[in-house]
Amino acid sequence: MTLQVYADRHSQPSRAILIFCKVNGIDFEEIRVELFKRQHLNPEFKEINPMGQVPAIVHGSFKLFESHAILRYLACAFPGIADHWYPSDLFKRATIESVLDWHHSNLRRGAVALIQNTVLGPALGLKMNQEAAVEGEKILSASLEKIESFWLKGNGLFLLGSSEPSIADLSLVCELMQLELMDEKICNRILGPHEKVQQWIEDTKRATQPHFEEVHELLIKARAKLQKHLSLGDENETGSSTKTALH
Amino acid sequence: MTLQVYADRHSQPSRAILIFCKVNGIDFEEIRVELFKRQHLNPEFKEINPMGQVPAIVHGSFKLFESHAILRYLACAFPGIADHWYPSDLFKRATIESVLDWHHSNLRRGAVALIQNTVLGPALGLKMNQEAAVEGEKILSASLEKIESFWLKGNGLFLLGSSEPSIADLSLVCELMQLELMDEKICNRILGPHEKVQQWIEDTKRATQPHFEEVHELLIKARAKLQKHLSLGDENETGSSTKTALH
Repeated sequence: MTLQVYADRHSQPSRAILIFCKVNGIDFEEIRVELFKRQHLNPEFKEINPMGQVPAIVHGSFKLFESHAILRYLACAFPGIADHWYPSDLFKRATIESVLDWHHSNLRRGAVALIQNTVLGPALGLKMNQEAAVEGEKILSASLEKIESFWLKGNGLFLLGSSEPSIADLSLVCELMQLELMDEKICNRILGPHEKVQQWIEDTKRATQPHFEEVHELLIKARAKLQKHLSLGDENETGSSTKTALH
Repeated sequence: MTLQVYADRHSQPSRAILIFCKVNGIDFEEIRVELFKRQHLNPEFKEINPMGQVPAIVHGSFKLFESHAILRYLACAFPGIADHWYPSDLFKRATIESVLDWHHSNLRRGAVALIQNTVLGPALGLKMNQEAAVEGEKILSASLEKIESFWLKGNGLFLLGSSEPSIADLSLVCELMQLELMDEKICNRILGPHEKVQQWIEDTKRATQPHFEEVHELLIKARAKLQKHLSLGDENETGSSTKTALH
């Protein structure tokens, strides 16, 4: 009963699942669902996840979607996963849940709004909205400030003062890696004021190497392609031309 | 070690926590944090929740915020909570997690955007944005369609075909109750096409009575006051005047 992971490595929650499986030696089959080819909207994929979003998993007859739910499930369903990923201690687990829930309406909301309304929108066939991008950056920066001043309090290298990463570190850092798609100057402007956040990203990368880097290779390649196209200054660039650039 | 629940009954996640405690006979002290009086921004409350949001709990020396994290914690920390609220079965629990995570970026996102940018914004001192209200209603209606066609599939009265409610039913139904603040016609226009959703709201109410109704009394009163003010057609109505209306 091999686990099947439906994913696109351009998607930050997809990468979190793939890295989690690889770091923890979970045997799985990666099934690519290419967002830029609209494969997430195919009827066959909607049989797996009716919401038409990656990631999703199939494990025997069990289907599941939503990346945080998948990470929790994997941490419990497979033997030998180190406790620090999703602690069995009631209090530690509860605070990790608190980070995971906070992520949705804060860091994720800000980052997605910014990136979709700047570099990624055309490739996904979405209408760009400048106001939404500005609002997204505001939410993102406020979220980074909260990570810096609150979630990264304590002596540990990871969230909640832990000495080892949890599924929350993995999920949030994969979210922030999406900023790699943007112009380096913008990326530095956003992350620059947050030294602890930058160090935490590096620590999470190091704790999950070589898998972190390997799973992010496609994103780094996409960045180069997107930036090349954007630097051409083609203001009439269409979704399809960016889409072509990514394949 | 009495549980302290910091809450405002105008807030849908606050109500979910209060109802959960009452239905399950958890002994607790309700500490009101009045959003319309900006008490959530007071330094004393920020010692409890640095994010400045309700609900939050203090249980002995343990502090926690984010309502889904609180519901999970309460279901595990207190003895004798019926298993259906947060099943110990790995697969049942995973699908409930999937609903809870989905809620953030779908039903909650849509409902909050719509209500804050129509009836509730002025009372909270927020700038109204007509475009955001329209977008919110779109996301809300799409979410209701997914609840109707997917989450409420099966023979049970509750989400995921269950015969008894879970913390997901409670959280999502409290979210939808926020629509009670709106004009009845708008509320009917939004919920009208979704008969199974309407029935599920009634079933969740019935399964948690008399506590559901008691905890929602304040919301129903607020509706009457808000509607009275809005019906005066005062287009220059300020946040402070609506705020006064609610106290």
